[in-house]
Amino acid sequence: MTRRVCVIGVGLTKFGEHWGKGFRELAIEAGIKAIEDAGISGKDIDAMYIGNMSGGRFIGQEHIASLIAGELGLNIPATRVEAACASGGLAVRQAYLAVLSGKHDVVLVGGVEKMTDVKTSEAALTLVGAADQEWEGYHGVTFPGLYALMARRHMYEYGTTREQLAMVAVKNHENATKNPIAQYPYPITIESVINSPPIAEPLNLLDCSPITDGAAAIVVCAEDVAKKFTDKLVHIAGSGHATDTLALHDRESLTEIKATKLAAKMAYEEAGIKPAEVDVAEVHDCFTIAEILAIEDLGFVEKGKGGEFVEDGETRLDGSIPINTSGGLKACGHPVGATGVKQIAEIVLQLRGEAGERQVKDARIGLTHNVGGSGATAVVHILERDW
Amino acid sequence: MTRRVCVIGVGLTKFGEHWGKGFRELAIEAGIKAIEDAGISGKDIDAMYIGNMSGGRFIGQEHIASLIAGELGLNIPATRVEAACASGGLAVRQAYLAVLSGKHDVVLVGGVEKMTDVKTSEAALTLVGAADQEWEGYHGVTFPGLYALMARRHMYEYGTTREQLAMVAVKNHENATKNPIAQYPYPITIESVINSPPIAEPLNLLDCSPITDGAAAIVVCAEDVAKKFTDKLVHIAGSGHATDTLALHDRESLTEIKATKLAAKMAYEEAGIKPAEVDVAEVHDCFTIAEILAIEDLGFVEKGKGGEFVEDGETRLDGSIPINTSGGLKACGHPVGATGVKQIAEIVLQLRGEAGERQVKDARIGLTHNVGGSGATAVVHILERDW
Repeated sequence: MTRRVCVIGVGLTKFGEHWGKGFRELAIEAGIKAIEDAGISGKDIDAMYIGNMSGGRFIGQEHIASLIAGELGLNIPATRVEAACASGGLAVRQAYLAVLSGKHDVVLVGGVEKMTDVKTSEAALTLVGAADQEWEGYHGVTFPGLYALMARRHMYEYGTTREQLAMVAVKNHENATKNPIAQYPYPITIESVINSPPIAEPLNLLDCSPITDGAAAIVVCAEDVAKKFTDKLVHIAGSGHATDTLALHDRESLTEIKATKLAAKMAYEEAGIKPAEVDVAEVHDCFTIAEILAIEDLGFVEKGKGGEFVEDGETRLDGSIPINTSGGLKACGHPVGATGVKQIAEIVLQLRGEAGERQVKDARIGLTHNVGGSGATAVVHILERDW
Repeated sequence: MTRRVCVIGVGLTKFGEHWGKGFRELAIEAGIKAIEDAGISGKDIDAMYIGNMSGGRFIGQEHIASLIAGELGLNIPATRVEAACASGGLAVRQAYLAVLSGKHDVVLVGGVEKMTDVKTSEAALTLVGAADQEWEGYHGVTFPGLYALMARRHMYEYGTTREQLAMVAVKNHENATKNPIAQYPYPITIESVINSPPIAEPLNLLDCSPITDGAAAIVVCAEDVAKKFTDKLVHIAGSGHATDTLALHDRESLTEIKATKLAAKMAYEEAGIKPAEVDVAEVHDCFTIAEILAIEDLGFVEKGKGGEFVEDGETRLDGSIPINTSGGLKACGHPVGATGVKQIAEIVLQLRGEAGERQVKDARIGLTHNVGGSGATAVVHILERDW
């Protein structure tokens, strides 16, 4: 009885420092590319969701969704969704629910962030708004600091090594060299990560995702309507969303993200699949430790074995479960509100066999995992092609 | 086949300047009141939507929905929705869609804004984020300025008088005297409005809604589940949402809000009713002219006749269509993200016959109308009791 939901188009801008393009130009560029990719026209779209973390502080602009709808010349329902760095993934989930509701058929989802119009120090302060401002931010804790606490504890409990953390960044930079939109498409080495400037011990500069401008868009569509536009359908087979306390110190564990586990359970059950069936995944590697937590919490490897799994090459393009083929947040870039939508776009390209040099052979089922803050939001999607 | 959706609980904080309560205390207070009013417990809730315009700039806090879910001890999907001053109404609509999707049954919707932790001048700058920052804000246009343009044109085209504008404020203050949560529960006169300090000609201080702290919450529930908790169901009979260009100068008309007309059409059609069937309405009176535009665009009175309609007393508590029984944004207060949720709460109280001294006799169908910016977002809901 429930209608099925598909992704029929994707569009991406280059990720990086866009001195020549503003917020609205980036959003429109990605949106129009997704519309063209879907083979639809603007008037086919009946609703829009936009993921954006902090337009208010980055560019002085709220009311983002109406801005973008207006620029596209549409009077449709348009909604901005915010859950810090998980804003994009959550916008996709809202579009999915909107199509399931039966009230909308063709929904454009955009994610966009323009982060370089403010000083880096101001951007860092803005990002602390994703943590608990009263209990964490005002006392000087930064995001590298919060993830450093998690990294240290993981190293202590499970013997994860400094080199294993670095290998995450090395692998993601390697993937980024094959991705034309990546912010940092160049290889790095374990040594260069370990010798890069310290940020919050044990994390160095090259363990951290960068500050990025960029936008991503997808077209989400009811299956019955999608068949008018394409024969090759990529389904949203499962969608999960969970939350946890905003402050890290209120959680039971420093070495797992409970919201990821809950969101993943919801998505796996809805899709009727097990983690081992996933062929390719984009996970939230805001810091190198975050990717290790993610692959454990998503069930790709036992808790505590993530570091070894990376060291064994299992997450590389030619490994058993290629992770972050796009280059991830680390090397493709992390325009916070756009990241979750970009993850879906990357997986759609993989499932369609359109990922070029970074193509995972015969990918049929893909997963995306988008985290807000230090784990207070997690959104997981499972995509599956039907051919 | 489509499930019906109800509102089974409402909760409101006092609106005003809360020096002794912070953002999270306000949100939790309203949420717990709504949960208690619905006769449910926290564990019955399976999702949450929060309307908030600018936590990032007012209190340095984004990631609002996870914050509130965490404070309530829940790990449920929680989503912040933003559409400037229409954030609250839009959060209600997303909850409605989420229940219609079949993925959620009992959804807590909150609206909250803490505006007085920054200086008034800073609050005003933050609110300009609801307009087009590049084309309006940076050039010095303020919201009173934008609505003053609309007021002047309405006076020119339709002969609306200065006194008629003032009568909107006088009527709303009169209603506020009967509302225990109102920020300004005292009567004013036409003379006091006209003699109050000029803000943007023809609008004076008492034509403008204030800066307010406050929160509102409702519990939205699938009808089949709601019957476990109550026999008296208030249905969401219709929901409409539309957008328009963010900048006022890009629109075809200064004297109508096209987004209101489109959203109202959607809601009326869904509910299967005509404007004349509405017994009571909460409309978006951020400035006195806005209420006149609203009652025209919602179809309660012909375009251009809104001023006369107010002068004739038709919108008073004892008139043909009582408008803003709560006191409206003008006198009940306007904590921007909370306003749209408060409107729904007020209508639910009216339909239940629990509105005390401001009760509209035999109210059976109510309407809410929430606007973002100068009209780039409009959200309309129609509520109906089934007894």
